[in-house]
Amino acid sequence: MRFFLHTHPQLMAIPMRLQSFASAQKWEGGVSMVQGASRGIGLEFVKQLLEKNGKGHVIATCRNPTKATALLELKNQFAERLNVLPLDVTVESTIEESARSITERYGSLNLLINASGILSIPSVLQPETTLSKVQKSSMMLAYEVNAVGPILVIKHMWPLLKVGGLLGTDRDVAVVANISARVGSIGDNRLGGWHMTKTISVEFARKKDPIACILLHPGTVDTDLSRPFQRNVPAEKLFAKEFSVQKLLNIINNAKQRDNGKFFAWDGQEIPW
Amino acid sequence: MRFFLHTHPQLMAIPMRLQSFASAQKWEGGVSMVQGASRGIGLEFVKQLLEKNGKGHVIATCRNPTKATALLELKNQFAERLNVLPLDVTVESTIEESARSITERYGSLNLLINASGILSIPSVLQPETTLSKVQKSSMMLAYEVNAVGPILVIKHMWPLLKVGGLLGTDRDVAVVANISARVGSIGDNRLGGWHMTKTISVEFARKKDPIACILLHPGTVDTDLSRPFQRNVPAEKLFAKEFSVQKLLNIINNAKQRDNGKFFAWDGQEIPW
Repeated sequence: MRFFLHTHPQLMAIPMRLQSFASAQKWEGGVSMVQGASRGIGLEFVKQLLEKNGKGHVIATCRNPTKATALLELKNQFAERLNVLPLDVTVESTIEESARSITERYGSLNLLINASGILSIPSVLQPETTLSKVQKSSMMLAYEVNAVGPILVIKHMWPLLKVGGLLGTDRDVAVVANISARVGSIGDNRLGGWHMTKTISVEFARKKDPIACILLHPGTVDTDLSRPFQRNVPAEKLFAKEFSVQKLLNIINNAKQRDNGKFFAWDGQEIPW
Repeated sequence: MRFFLHTHPQLMAIPMRLQSFASAQKWEGGVSMVQGASRGIGLEFVKQLLEKNGKGHVIATCRNPTKATALLELKNQFAERLNVLPLDVTVESTIEESARSITERYGSLNLLINASGILSIPSVLQPETTLSKVQKSSMMLAYEVNAVGPILVIKHMWPLLKVGGLLGTDRDVAVVANISARVGSIGDNRLGGWHMTKTISVEFARKKDPIACILLHPGTVDTDLSRPFQRNVPAEKLFAKEFSVQKLLNIINNAKQRDNGKFFAWDGQEIPW
């Protein structure tokens, strides 16, 4: 027995792996997580995921679920198919707690949408329009929320996505979709999402994980986030969130392994790196 | 008199502007600032700037001048042509204090080189090589030092650079040169320098400032910074800092207004955005 252990240590791992697959039952319709789901594009993703797939389960996270009235209304409507969890991307323990909760209840994830993001918070964060007004605190906060936060979420959901990709839905891979923000200025992290998606996709490919990490450009969507910046957007280029999310879900549902690391606009056009 | 004031308020500004130009005498050989000058590429820039231009003045900044022995040796050699100031990019007040000091003593800057940067600090900051080891604290620290720091330095030196660009040296513009780091991983800010340089250059152009902001890729240079990452670099691609800085200074000295926003490799090749 000791001899066996020493010569074939990898075989010892099989029972645990089988056990892991067994406990992760294949959820018909898949298990999707939307991070940043209290309003705007994130909320619309939750809604359409639940409406368009009568069997899919959705985990919707936001900083303060008790205040997310629109999300709680959906919870009334979709009951156990919707699971609302508290998650603040600036507090890593809440990300770990969500990962634990999803592991216990579902054991796998087929889709992770990072939809959180800040551009401005009145009297706290103003997107600076000139170098002379750049504030260190604003730059650090924007980076923490928009760049570091989504990376930490992917880090902790990674094991669940690996299982989800193997279990399969209609797609042959689990998908991580990061939503890119259009508005940018000196201190922003427009390139952060790009860079993050590309680098993480390289790691997924290197590890041969059944996960595609993509970046999505939703267009300029009429939400609270974009409202302070809509003045110069022509009416025909300001999309309703229903329209934009419908287009983005189409891209997600058709994502293939070979799309790992790619950047798509709302209309399906690939944006070159 | 009141009538004159109200109809031509801009004329009232002339005496002050003349005064400002008068106090900023034209320093023969120019006034250069090297931020992050205690060692590595920054220290080598200070050395070559002083050696190659017998009349130029150099302001060398680092976190702790009293510990910067190599810099203090240069101070012995070059006396009043070298001015060593304490500046920690993570403490904005030290940047403001440096700007005040340079304003009083020189009144202008013809060149600002941002050479500071961290990749690893033993037991504090390790450049992560895998998503599962990404640490939030490391990402935030790297962003603060490598991305936000140089932006704040440019912000506060901007007024001095405007004057320096108008006074002229052999170049027709003042130059801001940001040194790019080659090594990158998930949480790094490789694109930060790129983005920062591009965005700031757009602002300089919009304001018609006589300043060119460029990004420089030094190659892989044999310094303390790159030492932990040199293992896989072929000997002929690992440059001595003397060689790399000589090449980069050549690019800086030949920079034109039209180079604003460009990215150059050590050999002068423009790297496309």
